[in-house]
Amino acid sequence: MKLETTYRANNYPIIVEHQALDHLHQYINHYQDIVLFVDAQVNQIWHETIDFITSEHDAYKFIIPSGETTKTLSFYEETIELLLSKQLTRNTCLISIGGGATGDFTGFLAATLLRGVDFIQVPTTILAHDSSVGGKVGINSKHGKNLIGAFHRPKAVIYDLNFLKTLPYSEILSGYAEVYKHALLNGPSSVTNIEAHYSNEKTLKHLTDIEYYLYKGIETKLNIIVQDEKESNIRKFLNLGHTFGHAVEYQFKIPHGHAVMLGIIFQFIVSNLTLDTNYDINHYTSYLKALNYPFDVVQKFNFESLYQLMLKDKKNDQDGVQMVLLEEIGKATVQHISKATLVQAFDIFITYFEK
Amino acid sequence: MKLETTYRANNYPIIVEHQALDHLHQYINHYQDIVLFVDAQVNQIWHETIDFITSEHDAYKFIIPSGETTKTLSFYEETIELLLSKQLTRNTCLISIGGGATGDFTGFLAATLLRGVDFIQVPTTILAHDSSVGGKVGINSKHGKNLIGAFHRPKAVIYDLNFLKTLPYSEILSGYAEVYKHALLNGPSSVTNIEAHYSNEKTLKHLTDIEYYLYKGIETKLNIIVQDEKESNIRKFLNLGHTFGHAVEYQFKIPHGHAVMLGIIFQFIVSNLTLDTNYDINHYTSYLKALNYPFDVVQKFNFESLYQLMLKDKKNDQDGVQMVLLEEIGKATVQHISKATLVQAFDIFITYFEK
Repeated sequence: MKLETTYRANNYPIIVEHQALDHLHQYINHYQDIVLFVDAQVNQIWHETIDFITSEHDAYKFIIPSGETTKTLSFYEETIELLLSKQLTRNTCLISIGGGATGDFTGFLAATLLRGVDFIQVPTTILAHDSSVGGKVGINSKHGKNLIGAFHRPKAVIYDLNFLKTLPYSEILSGYAEVYKHALLNGPSSVTNIEAHYSNEKTLKHLTDIEYYLYKGIETKLNIIVQDEKESNIRKFLNLGHTFGHAVEYQFKIPHGHAVMLGIIFQFIVSNLTLDTNYDINHYTSYLKALNYPFDVVQKFNFESLYQLMLKDKKNDQDGVQMVLLEEIGKATVQHISKATLVQAFDIFITYFEK
Repeated sequence: MKLETTYRANNYPIIVEHQALDHLHQYINHYQDIVLFVDAQVNQIWHETIDFITSEHDAYKFIIPSGETTKTLSFYEETIELLLSKQLTRNTCLISIGGGATGDFTGFLAATLLRGVDFIQVPTTILAHDSSVGGKVGINSKHGKNLIGAFHRPKAVIYDLNFLKTLPYSEILSGYAEVYKHALLNGPSSVTNIEAHYSNEKTLKHLTDIEYYLYKGIETKLNIIVQDEKESNIRKFLNLGHTFGHAVEYQFKIPHGHAVMLGIIFQFIVSNLTLDTNYDINHYTSYLKALNYPFDVVQKFNFESLYQLMLKDKKNDQDGVQMVLLEEIGKATVQHISKATLVQAFDIFITYFEK
């Protein structure tokens, strides 16, 4: 299946299918230089496929550490200097083969190498169905996640679903948070449908029909980002669950989606406190427990340190913390939330995770 | 005088006049946070003016070292982390007050801070009439100048000509190279006119009517960049003199414009060797000597090391070094130049600077 962005110009295709990698060739055969950035874990399992691409295109292959550890300024410096030592021209394409972190890092290299070269996203996780689309690239600061970065559109997203077969369940859970978030942004029937389809660990683990839900998720995202690429307005909705989630992820170094799911719960509580909503928090926590999300980390939470991290969220303005809330399922809004309300929500939140 | 870019969207004004700083207020009064980056030498002379802006807008002021020494990855890392420690939101404007290096550095910070915030250029040199317009921002790699960067348009360029009164002559010479380059790109009458107007050191030092020539230079540049912002085509013409010039500048750390003037001479020689031209090289070297450009550095030139640096030029492609040449005054072209031709041109070049 193939989707395509609908910006006024510089659109790019998103190919979502098994064997999607077969299409890669046509997007890269005109470049002088190709550089692959491959997540070390992905390379371990898929090195034959990847080495075939490398030799077919006489490409450079860089194996980079898995996960967020690559997204530092020092690794960025080391890598871009290494790239520049190869006398690349602007007619170069960087290809990211890995999860969200690999894509963010490679994309930021592409955005800043020689004032910008092309890049292609080859996501290998469920989580990266989200991060590979939309052009957000970046690395982490010691003050928070993704605070150094750019908007730099990929030339193509080649999403080969074969990669998903070898994902550990923890990674499936992390990715599923964004799929679920897209359903929450879509509407009540999407949520009912997906909760029924993936009702527990066993069904989610098998990823039956995941193509459909990934496709729907990407479509939901595309509808938003083509209207507001630079996140001045409705693109903020995609941060549902992320204000609290990023703080948790940053402090406790847990997988992105695990943290976002906690952020989604937190947001429902804040909605109940500040909007005219009456979400059944038990329903959502029970669902996440049925999927077997590991939430032991909640025992370590301390409001003040999470609050300090929430203050650094990019959505904030002069009036303090802004949070995406659901007025109703399928209808998001961005609201300023006072510290007092956040404290109150936090106290309620932890009661749902007491042992 | 006010110019304005004519892109399809996101245009910005360029105000060129004495007391242009009086207009700054209107462009920045809506931001939550303002951060000034001020060249140390500029701050020494103009601290009263600058401190007035700082206190009026409750801004942060960062004094940064003069010149290219700021444009390193390590200083970038230090500075962006310091900025991020201040919990800035996206509603922030960075203001560069200084020469080209200050603008390049501040612009790259703005391009990458929180995935991009606004910035305003307040050029204080003649050279920066060129670099402050067009959105090229960046820092240096250990492999060459400006190899790490982005295209990020300023929100305004406020060019207060009062700053030029305190420029040392060496800096005037550096800036004049780009003014002269713009005349070469414009046509024969522009060149005849400017050579007559600034015929020697004495006349250039006084900068009589410099407004007119700066305005003309910016206009020449604007006509090109609105057609080709990302330098895939005619924007390359603006690199006239820069292939050789950047190599010289990078190796010998001489002022940008001094190196570009040498690059312009070099380009004339290459044109004579490869195109159907017959430039009088003596005319140009005599003119530069009349202006008192310090060209002692030429004695230290070694072809091979300069060639290695030229190979890293961003304009290059798979076929090697590309150079902007003048088919005739006012008519530029980009050509591949073989190593053999470059050697030959180099041998001719140095004869013009023998003692």
